[in-house]
Amino acid sequence: MTAKNKSQFRPVAVPDVTLDGFWGKWQDAVCDSTAAILLDRCEKAGMIQAIDVDRPSPGIVIPIDEKWTGSTQMFWDSDLGKSIETIAYSLYRKPNPELEARADAIIEMYEKLQQEDGYVNAWFQRVQPGKRWTNLRDHHELYCAGHLMEAAVAYYQATGKRKLLDIMCRYADHLIKVFGHGEGQIPGYCGHQEVELALVKLARVTGEQKYLDLSKFFIDERGSQPHFFTAEALRGGRDPKNYVHKTYEYSQAHLPVREQGKVVGHAVRAMYQYSGMADIATEYQDDTLTSTLETLWDDLTVKQMYVTGGIGPAASNEGFTDYYDLPNDTAYAETCASVGLVFWASRMLGRGPNRRYADIMEQALYNGALTGLSIDGKTFFYDNPLESTGKHHRWVWHRCPCCPPNVARLVASIGSYMYAVADNEIAVHLYGESSVKAEMAGAGVKLAQRTNYPWNGDIRIEVETTVPSTFAIALRIPEWADGAALQINGSPVDLSSSVVDGYARLERAWNTGDVIELKLPLELRPQYASPKVRHDVGRVALARGPLIYCVEETDNGGDLNAFVVPQDLKGYRIKEIERLNGAVAVELDVSKEDTNGWNGSLYRTRPPEQVAATMTLVPYHLWDNRDPGAMLVWLQSEK
Amino acid sequence: MTAKNKSQFRPVAVPDVTLDGFWGKWQDAVCDSTAAILLDRCEKAGMIQAIDVDRPSPGIVIPIDEKWTGSTQMFWDSDLGKSIETIAYSLYRKPNPELEARADAIIEMYEKLQQEDGYVNAWFQRVQPGKRWTNLRDHHELYCAGHLMEAAVAYYQATGKRKLLDIMCRYADHLIKVFGHGEGQIPGYCGHQEVELALVKLARVTGEQKYLDLSKFFIDERGSQPHFFTAEALRGGRDPKNYVHKTYEYSQAHLPVREQGKVVGHAVRAMYQYSGMADIATEYQDDTLTSTLETLWDDLTVKQMYVTGGIGPAASNEGFTDYYDLPNDTAYAETCASVGLVFWASRMLGRGPNRRYADIMEQALYNGALTGLSIDGKTFFYDNPLESTGKHHRWVWHRCPCCPPNVARLVASIGSYMYAVADNEIAVHLYGESSVKAEMAGAGVKLAQRTNYPWNGDIRIEVETTVPSTFAIALRIPEWADGAALQINGSPVDLSSSVVDGYARLERAWNTGDVIELKLPLELRPQYASPKVRHDVGRVALARGPLIYCVEETDNGGDLNAFVVPQDLKGYRIKEIERLNGAVAVELDVSKEDTNGWNGSLYRTRPPEQVAATMTLVPYHLWDNRDPGAMLVWLQSEK
Repeated sequence: MTAKNKSQFRPVAVPDVTLDGFWGKWQDAVCDSTAAILLDRCEKAGMIQAIDVDRPSPGIVIPIDEKWTGSTQMFWDSDLGKSIETIAYSLYRKPNPELEARADAIIEMYEKLQQEDGYVNAWFQRVQPGKRWTNLRDHHELYCAGHLMEAAVAYYQATGKRKLLDIMCRYADHLIKVFGHGEGQIPGYCGHQEVELALVKLARVTGEQKYLDLSKFFIDERGSQPHFFTAEALRGGRDPKNYVHKTYEYSQAHLPVREQGKVVGHAVRAMYQYSGMADIATEYQDDTLTSTLETLWDDLTVKQMYVTGGIGPAASNEGFTDYYDLPNDTAYAETCASVGLVFWASRMLGRGPNRRYADIMEQALYNGALTGLSIDGKTFFYDNPLESTGKHHRWVWHRCPCCPPNVARLVASIGSYMYAVADNEIAVHLYGESSVKAEMAGAGVKLAQRTNYPWNGDIRIEVETTVPSTFAIALRIPEWADGAALQINGSPVDLSSSVVDGYARLERAWNTGDVIELKLPLELRPQYASPKVRHDVGRVALARGPLIYCVEETDNGGDLNAFVVPQDLKGYRIKEIERLNGAVAVELDVSKEDTNGWNGSLYRTRPPEQVAATMTLVPYHLWDNRDPGAMLVWLQSEK
Repeated sequence: MTAKNKSQFRPVAVPDVTLDGFWGKWQDAVCDSTAAILLDRCEKAGMIQAIDVDRPSPGIVIPIDEKWTGSTQMFWDSDLGKSIETIAYSLYRKPNPELEARADAIIEMYEKLQQEDGYVNAWFQRVQPGKRWTNLRDHHELYCAGHLMEAAVAYYQATGKRKLLDIMCRYADHLIKVFGHGEGQIPGYCGHQEVELALVKLARVTGEQKYLDLSKFFIDERGSQPHFFTAEALRGGRDPKNYVHKTYEYSQAHLPVREQGKVVGHAVRAMYQYSGMADIATEYQDDTLTSTLETLWDDLTVKQMYVTGGIGPAASNEGFTDYYDLPNDTAYAETCASVGLVFWASRMLGRGPNRRYADIMEQALYNGALTGLSIDGKTFFYDNPLESTGKHHRWVWHRCPCCPPNVARLVASIGSYMYAVADNEIAVHLYGESSVKAEMAGAGVKLAQRTNYPWNGDIRIEVETTVPSTFAIALRIPEWADGAALQINGSPVDLSSSVVDGYARLERAWNTGDVIELKLPLELRPQYASPKVRHDVGRVALARGPLIYCVEETDNGGDLNAFVVPQDLKGYRIKEIERLNGAVAVELDVSKEDTNGWNGSLYRTRPPEQVAATMTLVPYHLWDNRDPGAMLVWLQSEK
């Protein structure tokens, strides 16, 4: 395996981080509720029966033709994979023999299901046998393989049990034989990216270069000419033009990946692809990939991203449309897409800390992704509009249940996004009450973050080392944290000279008892969109630290669009809302347009009168956790 | 037939009005282009072959089941009917032997098609024989009959030819036998209202009370219990619950009409129903209908109407949704629906002039309906959004071609909406270069309006009488016309004392040579929506006289949402645009938010800078007649 370069940063393993505080509560919700709920609902949908060779195939006949191949059930394995991955992380936090036994039973079913040659896939062994590898464009086979690989790595790391890992290594070895340019091999790749990043995880945990190489093969092949999807369709007697998604942009296979400069198509596919590309860029020090990714990053974040870190405005393709097309009430902004953006951002940090990526990672995490999970861990958002008239509510389950286990596994593994390590450096990308273990220059190091972040911006990091040791601690100073202040052992650190790429890089001999104190100001701050975003002109969103706020009908009554936020935000108050896990709400004196006085007409020549009002804002990710009602992020702004 | 009450106003017949100026040009476009285009495209669609018994039935097999019964072709007769009606009006303005011969040929085909018993319907004689009257809910049979009746009346009035009128009287006589509560009769009504208002036209031209009574029967039966549509479905072995439109609100059959208080369902159906109700209210002096209609009028105009007079925001039901739900970019606002609103408003004037109705008639006519026709009369809008990013353009034809002939017949017959007469009074509801003939108190009266309205607000009305005669001329003083001034023969009339229900009622002995001069100020005026309309908060629309204005990319470049209109509109300039038939455009000095300076981020804490800019506005009804591009009605407003 390629030697790890000094500047390569890898996320710490989930078991190396212990969380409390904000993320601890969310992880408890996943451990106590979501993890088991995922299995319950997968079972109810027939997924577990589908992989159990001792039971008859559910044999559900679903029309599969050129018009609609993406049936819900075809990617069952991925839902089970993400569920097992979630359970794995949860077991590390909270041992749960019953849950572990259920996961073990599923893994045993996969062991029995696996064929001699290593192939394993519920749908194409049990529902549509004989169709194996006949339609990579639409059939999600490698996508399913990828999610089971991720589950295998997580389950191994959390429990030490190798069974699923061994199954998936056998499967990956089989894939190495199947895919390539050799005689009888398939020179293709999956219509839904995922296996690329999963193979990197598998390579890292096994140390096997061959899995990296297969991942790189899939990335290098994608979009090349002659086009694999076209050839595959013709070979199968299908008309390549008769494609439900119309364009290969849908799966980012319209161009070779290094020629892609615009973020297009299905949002989750795009994020998973870029994540895999970033991993390969890191592992192979591939600057051609890195420069492509930087272009794509700007394209996404400067022209196509909601202020919540939500991405992919359209339901029709679950993805991207035109630049600056960011409607709020009809925003699709799938939970999985923001989860994917967190994945990508995290991997863009592989070549070194840079707040250009980490700030967006935090923005997408708190606002785009976490919103997908209810505070009790029992219900879910699939799409995440920034405005609701009161009809959008959390679901118990979804026809395509990709989001519930996706946000759950992210929350349950959040520690590995908070910290990353290079040979002689530990980067703190995200803040939150936690502690992390790492090896640094031969010493065992533990950092304990003491903080009530994101409710409070005071962060105290206590250093423990087994022996005094010289290494660097890189602390992200978010771009929004104007006036941030840092001390080591009580002595101020001049941030203006020590911050590189948005990180204070503190390299010194560290010793047990050393204390870093970071103060991130969490003043309420306005967010104005470029006037290119027609949906947000004349409006302002309010943020505090990494959190985007919104107004809900339950606190504010109706007619949320009648509120007008002053330019001067001074004088706001904060208060805790017990019912929302002690979240910090914001009270602000504002104007409200008078909806009375319009009797007898809908239109008039006088502008509306403004009356004084008080507005209560809550973090967007917590909306629809109390009484149902209307919600709004982008508020009218005083001009 | 019930004696016409003194306070009953009926529209003048189309041939009694001659138009020039603004409406003259539009009528020329219909005469010179649209009228023939309608027949050309109906022919191309197979409609004419369908009624021609000498040719084989087009025999198009279209799946007709519980899920989708509203196939395009089922209401072919209505498209032919509206086309013949358009041709009829056009022939009066511009004789055209070739076009008249084509219409005569179609009428002859209908004569041959008509069955012995009087029934005539292309679909249920030629495509689905045997299904006659089996599904009034979905099959549009009476709707088709209604449009052919309207065509018959128009063709008779324009050409003096009775053939189609006789056909439709025979059909109406047949309907009288078929529908009712007697033995073997059907106690039903059509899923798409239309025949109700058509029977009133037929009654008025023939003097036959029986046609009025049948219209009243349909209105009185609608929505009564036990529900006809439910009984009909059960009788046909269909599950009434398995209804594609889900609720009888769709066709306003959810309640008896006199119990309806909320405007719901399919917008065109609603307008046609209320039009028929208003006619019956006028003819029968039925106050129970009138009070219902007043409630519905307020419900529509105070809670559900676009500032353009567009109605029915949703594509899904081509109709109404929630109160104040008026999205601009996705507005459906079907051309036919605003045409229908003009119909309804016109008929609400049947019991006397009242600007409450006439102002909205004018608003819907100029902005909601006329927009559906291109200036050359050759292309059409079906839906009428108030904002376009540049992708919405006029169609050559439409899958459901209801709008082209609907707006065409309205334009071609606009004279009958301008003037209405009662026994001793003539009401001028709309202004425009024209002259009208009427009998007043035994005298032949002619009023000649000399005006460049709506571009200019000066209106001069020259009176001619065969003998001096005492009668009233009622002139609408629009609510928007603040500062209107009126003179008779040079002497000012005090409007504050003479205006009743928004009309200056000038009752006196009129003589040839009398001149009325009305000055309606056409200052540019802002229109603010109630803050209940979330889509329009912080925004303003600009109006001049009856016209709503918009900005187009072709005059203003892109980023139309970045314009900010000042509260003080003084200092605007007007200029003529030759290419748009001499339309008055408005130039206004405004601010524009700077879309530069946002490099590297989509969001920032500083509001956008404003730079000085000049904006050119054109009348909304003329948009997309020049270079294609973005368009916007509701502009950011300075606070």
